[in-house]
Amino acid sequence: MSHLAPWMQRLGMLHPIIQAPMAGTSTPELAAAVCQGGGLGSLGLGALSVEAAQAEIERTRALTQVPFNVNLFCHHNGQHDSAREAAWLQYLAPEFAKFGAQPPQRLHNIYASAVGNGPLQNMVLQQRPAVVSFHFGLPEPHFIDTLRRAGCLTLACATSLEEALDIERAGIDVVVAQGMEAGGHRGVFDPAHDQCMGTLGLVQLLVRHTRLPVVAAGGIMDGAGIAAALQLGACGVQMGTAFVLCPESNASAAYRTALQSPSSLRTALTSAISGRPARGLVSRLHQLGQAYGQPLPDYPMVYDAAKALHQVASAQGCHDYAPFWAGQGAALGRALPAAQLVKTLGQELHEAQAPASR
Amino acid sequence: MSHLAPWMQRLGMLHPIIQAPMAGTSTPELAAAVCQGGGLGSLGLGALSVEAAQAEIERTRALTQVPFNVNLFCHHNGQHDSAREAAWLQYLAPEFAKFGAQPPQRLHNIYASAVGNGPLQNMVLQQRPAVVSFHFGLPEPHFIDTLRRAGCLTLACATSLEEALDIERAGIDVVVAQGMEAGGHRGVFDPAHDQCMGTLGLVQLLVRHTRLPVVAAGGIMDGAGIAAALQLGACGVQMGTAFVLCPESNASAAYRTALQSPSSLRTALTSAISGRPARGLVSRLHQLGQAYGQPLPDYPMVYDAAKALHQVASAQGCHDYAPFWAGQGAALGRALPAAQLVKTLGQELHEAQAPASR
Repeated sequence: MSHLAPWMQRLGMLHPIIQAPMAGTSTPELAAAVCQGGGLGSLGLGALSVEAAQAEIERTRALTQVPFNVNLFCHHNGQHDSAREAAWLQYLAPEFAKFGAQPPQRLHNIYASAVGNGPLQNMVLQQRPAVVSFHFGLPEPHFIDTLRRAGCLTLACATSLEEALDIERAGIDVVVAQGMEAGGHRGVFDPAHDQCMGTLGLVQLLVRHTRLPVVAAGGIMDGAGIAAALQLGACGVQMGTAFVLCPESNASAAYRTALQSPSSLRTALTSAISGRPARGLVSRLHQLGQAYGQPLPDYPMVYDAAKALHQVASAQGCHDYAPFWAGQGAALGRALPAAQLVKTLGQELHEAQAPASR
Repeated sequence: MSHLAPWMQRLGMLHPIIQAPMAGTSTPELAAAVCQGGGLGSLGLGALSVEAAQAEIERTRALTQVPFNVNLFCHHNGQHDSAREAAWLQYLAPEFAKFGAQPPQRLHNIYASAVGNGPLQNMVLQQRPAVVSFHFGLPEPHFIDTLRRAGCLTLACATSLEEALDIERAGIDVVVAQGMEAGGHRGVFDPAHDQCMGTLGLVQLLVRHTRLPVVAAGGIMDGAGIAAALQLGACGVQMGTAFVLCPESNASAAYRTALQSPSSLRTALTSAISGRPARGLVSRLHQLGQAYGQPLPDYPMVYDAAKALHQVASAQGCHDYAPFWAGQGAALGRALPAAQLVKTLGQELHEAQAPASR
């Protein structure tokens, strides 16, 4: 255990493994099981109301006494653009028509940012989870200060050195270096300036040019991958796709089937599902997005459209529009109970690091 | 040495390090120095005439008795499209005008592919280098067979599992897994189907799903990076950007200065320099390519335009159009003599693998 970073030891972690928050796929059961297995479990609260988010935290507390992580979205609140939204809905109309449906009349701003979100921030401060992490950017300095004074450890996601330096200056404790291999939404602050760095290069850059502990994320699926990340100077890893097949996750049967099929070999980034770049198994929405020659509406308005389309299609057994988020290592996923997966990963890491294995 | 793959031992390599071919930047002196240092030096012959290519091989032989690698381009020979070429030249005209120049009247197919290239293939067979490697695809089966019968070891570059399986079926001996972090030209067979996989995920995929030895390329700059690649199951690494600053390389003073400046922190892929996706320090041509809303001419016709523009600009001391190829790890480059760099990398690898280092 002596190789664990001090902050991990303080949290009681036995393995340098964070389960990625994965809004919509993570559950209190998954987070708790990861914690029980010796990793750091996470709740992705970005898609929930304040009340639902609070309920998830409380349910997790009821399941485990081990510290866990609560993740918040810090995107710039999307701006409605009725022309863009109407054009996108019109473009999708033939897809809806395949299922005898029509696109929604309008798109809604379905996910509130944590930035400037008093009710959400107050709830989090009241709940005081051991760890709070941020995606898509940073909240206002006052909230970060208040969390620190409340004793919460803070993490934030960086996809570039510039973002990591912003995170360091903001007084965040740990930076998550998210490579472009990662499944789900890229944490990039401003998608217009995405440098698309791979995990390998990004981790090395952040280790050299920031003073923060670096957690590697993106494409890591097993103990050899964890060992590789530690070789690069990371103090630990964050793994999302690796946990989707756990029985404790909220993944649908169709999602699990797809991840265990040859489809898992082909992922791509698209903004056509949510309005922000995110990596998943290649779907009809990837194709539609690629063929669409116009600017998309903002996040999360695009997501509202994709959800409506997925709903009408999946009701008829068609999963072509499902957001099956997955990283480039998806084909290496394993369907194990989460606590057992964490222990297996820890064992694999130990073996990868043993001199005898060479 | 016992951890070296058998094929590396047979070549007399002391370290699992291949210097990437880098057409235009590699030299006989660089290849020979890498070989003398215990790595595998490479010549990138893709941009040379048969006579010049033969001269490079002979010069390298005169410098070292250690086996080296000769790299050939296997692109589909570009098709002229006069409308596309005229449009691109017209678009670039204001850039030429900045230097009181006009764009060339027409663009030339400046680089012949090795595919179906009898004179080149005959020269290579006659020279019989110890190792022959392929980029952008594969040559015809007969040439691969003939090389094998001649005792040459063959390598080919893959950017996806599909390409790696093609390489395996073709009877190639070793696959180079080139992640999107890599500097210079992506080896992708058909750029229209680029999966943009990162080194980390690609190496793991190829290790699991092919029977070939896998060499990791892309973003690897030091011994820790090599150790990480070996952790993932690679038998060695191919490093390009790491060798550009060696005094033996053909890099210009401006290229060296840029690589040692903060510019090295920002690389991007563009097809606007050559007509094929390639990664380099962000330049004016990256911007021009991004703003160009039309299909580019084929490779290497685009390259002919970029070279003309770079020539008129650099004659006036402006290097904004120079193809400063560089991978995402460029900022970690070191200006050391090549043999010393190889030895340093070997020492760093040894230290990274030593249990005491943890």
